[in-house]
Amino acid sequence: MKELRVGLLGIGTVGGGTYTVISRNQADIARRIGGKISIVQVADRNLELARQVTGGQVAVTDDAFAVVNNPDVDVVVELIGGYTVAKELVLKAIANGKHVVTANKALLAVHGNEIFKAAADKGVIVAFEAAVAGGIPIIKALREGLSANRIEWVAGIINGTTNFILTEMRDKGLAFADVLREAQRLGYAEADPTFDVEGIDAAHKLTIMASIAFGMPVQFEQAYTEGITSLTTKDIQYAEELGYRIKLLGISKKTEAGVELRVHPTLIPEKRLIANVDGAMNAVVVKGDAVGPTLYYGAGAGAEPTASAVVADLVDIARLQGTTAEQRVAYLGYQLDQQQVLPILPIAEVQSAYYLRLHASDKPGVMADVTKILADLQISIDAMLQKEPQEGEVEADIVILTHITQEKTMDAAIARIEALPAITGTAIKIRMETLSR
Amino acid sequence: MKELRVGLLGIGTVGGGTYTVISRNQADIARRIGGKISIVQVADRNLELARQVTGGQVAVTDDAFAVVNNPDVDVVVELIGGYTVAKELVLKAIANGKHVVTANKALLAVHGNEIFKAAADKGVIVAFEAAVAGGIPIIKALREGLSANRIEWVAGIINGTTNFILTEMRDKGLAFADVLREAQRLGYAEADPTFDVEGIDAAHKLTIMASIAFGMPVQFEQAYTEGITSLTTKDIQYAEELGYRIKLLGISKKTEAGVELRVHPTLIPEKRLIANVDGAMNAVVVKGDAVGPTLYYGAGAGAEPTASAVVADLVDIARLQGTTAEQRVAYLGYQLDQQQVLPILPIAEVQSAYYLRLHASDKPGVMADVTKILADLQISIDAMLQKEPQEGEVEADIVILTHITQEKTMDAAIARIEALPAITGTAIKIRMETLSR
Repeated sequence: MKELRVGLLGIGTVGGGTYTVISRNQADIARRIGGKISIVQVADRNLELARQVTGGQVAVTDDAFAVVNNPDVDVVVELIGGYTVAKELVLKAIANGKHVVTANKALLAVHGNEIFKAAADKGVIVAFEAAVAGGIPIIKALREGLSANRIEWVAGIINGTTNFILTEMRDKGLAFADVLREAQRLGYAEADPTFDVEGIDAAHKLTIMASIAFGMPVQFEQAYTEGITSLTTKDIQYAEELGYRIKLLGISKKTEAGVELRVHPTLIPEKRLIANVDGAMNAVVVKGDAVGPTLYYGAGAGAEPTASAVVADLVDIARLQGTTAEQRVAYLGYQLDQQQVLPILPIAEVQSAYYLRLHASDKPGVMADVTKILADLQISIDAMLQKEPQEGEVEADIVILTHITQEKTMDAAIARIEALPAITGTAIKIRMETLSR
Repeated sequence: MKELRVGLLGIGTVGGGTYTVISRNQADIARRIGGKISIVQVADRNLELARQVTGGQVAVTDDAFAVVNNPDVDVVVELIGGYTVAKELVLKAIANGKHVVTANKALLAVHGNEIFKAAADKGVIVAFEAAVAGGIPIIKALREGLSANRIEWVAGIINGTTNFILTEMRDKGLAFADVLREAQRLGYAEADPTFDVEGIDAAHKLTIMASIAFGMPVQFEQAYTEGITSLTTKDIQYAEELGYRIKLLGISKKTEAGVELRVHPTLIPEKRLIANVDGAMNAVVVKGDAVGPTLYYGAGAGAEPTASAVVADLVDIARLQGTTAEQRVAYLGYQLDQQQVLPILPIAEVQSAYYLRLHASDKPGVMADVTKILADLQISIDAMLQKEPQEGEVEADIVILTHITQEKTMDAAIARIEALPAITGTAIKIRMETLSR
């Protein structure tokens, strides 16, 4: 495959993230597609910023149309936002026979029908994974992963700002206005938060998902939109007492009478996974007739999570230009001749935290002996649980959670612990993962 | 696009599901790909079953090699399982220049390197979405959706049988052996459950995911595998007291020293979404350097969920044979000329359950009046919460959860309720969704 030459419109948060991700992961991406993705030109009104982010490696301009008309650009990445200039630029790029990648949900929800028609006429790709739920590959799941299904409904937490606000209202019992102010201070909410808190942003994203789910044109103007501004902590609390959480959901359902397309605060049983999606995170549940419910969770905004989706679209475009099966999408993600034979760690070398259960006679000093053995091997203790002996027994369970150590160190400690006279039987060892980093 | 002609090897659970899904969703799939997927031949040792499932619509044979050698077959779907005959059939199909779709994780985890090499030499596709986590499009997410990322680790509940057993042990306090027996009776566990309960099946799936995540050959023989057979309810309970759940996780992590590839029972903090994945469901967390953690959840087994993945692979193959951008993957999933302008339901026509909060003076009879209004409009009550008036107030909150009704009926009820003399202010109405069906 030859090089895919990218023109970037906008080098703000997402544009900067896109530049960073392509630069940092260049080698891995090349191993996947058997070719190269290069940013050849960047347009931003802030030339200084553009020069700073690109470090003089790339031509910069303050004229976005120069990028769109640049014959050396294969793909235009539109990260400007809004409906007017962005629309002109996208349509011009298409007219010039260039593929387009965009994160602009407002543009697609409102002008998508016109844009996709123009792209089809010119035979170019318009990709927009970043437009819905940031880094979560939900467009790909709907369009490709679930293509065997008749989709019955889609329901999602697709606005991180409002989910952050609702989570804070619930956790801290604070009023909407107070949390909004705090969110603005932290940069989670914009100075004019209307698009987020009134549900408009979520409705844009829902419109796009519904179109894919049900095979219909985008119809944003028909979406029902209700925000979270009048929601009180009282209702959040009452809902909780009844076993529910309140989330701003975008819901689209195909019924015999027509398609529901609605964004509003919604009570969800607290047992559902999606009810437990907190903070600025996003999640979408898709119900297909064959697969049943599936859920997709991740960061819905932010520089690099959104860039992850933008760059995945670029990789898709590069792959679609390949001519062999393997070039299109490599069987195992990376081109076969680019695989590395990495060593697999023996379990003794693995690092983990541990749960230990010991059975000990109720003698004084056993805890001191056990903790000394752990200390000697530099295994630190995270938590401990000592159980009383059960009725009629003289031995009791001791449970210890350790911090991270190497498996062979843990095993050495266990061998010494089992040799203590007060310890009976074998120790139970279960590995522990926080899955947080 | 022309027709994609499929030969199906095996018409048992997943094969039958594949046949059903393709038949039922034929029209929707055709609208997506602008062409047709047809099963032209089915092989199964049980000819009677094959005839019964296909209803005489398709040629059946008990000779799988007849399908693999059939010049009218473009794609062979291998759903036989095992390492020996399945391997021969897959390699023969590839040698004959046919694409292959398989759900056979054991085959790929053990012989994947040889199979993918053969496929690359012949320029054919080998697709295997169904091999890992059933209907969840996790292979696509890893290979395409997250292609911008350096993957740091993958951790998943990728065996439904063991997750069902662990969930039952925890919920009912039953011993492993008892739950296993029950699972076997219900058909959730096989007569010989070794592959599931010893973690071998999970290790097969993990091996495939790790290979995609880190760009390395499959190395199943190096995976560390520890099952759940010696897990006791005592440890599940102690873990719970400490704020953890025990799950059988497949974990693969890239470290400086090498790649971890391990399956074992694992304590996970109960706050993590994946700790709350219960019953036979599967979920995989993928951590990418740009996107952060993402999670994919759904049914990991069963006829139609697995068929969902098999058929999605067929759709992918059909799309890759398209020649224009739009034919490859349609912008909005469906070909533009196949979009239907579906009516969007006005919110008044939408069906929903509701949360109502009323503010009522503490007069006798107000509850009777409210419930009579709801009954008159045939709105049934699911739950009710009556709050005492707050200190110094004479009015109290009444919260009502209703069953499903139409929004305009609910609004009519609210208008009547608000007109009651004992009700002050406006009623708060929040929609409620169970997201269960």
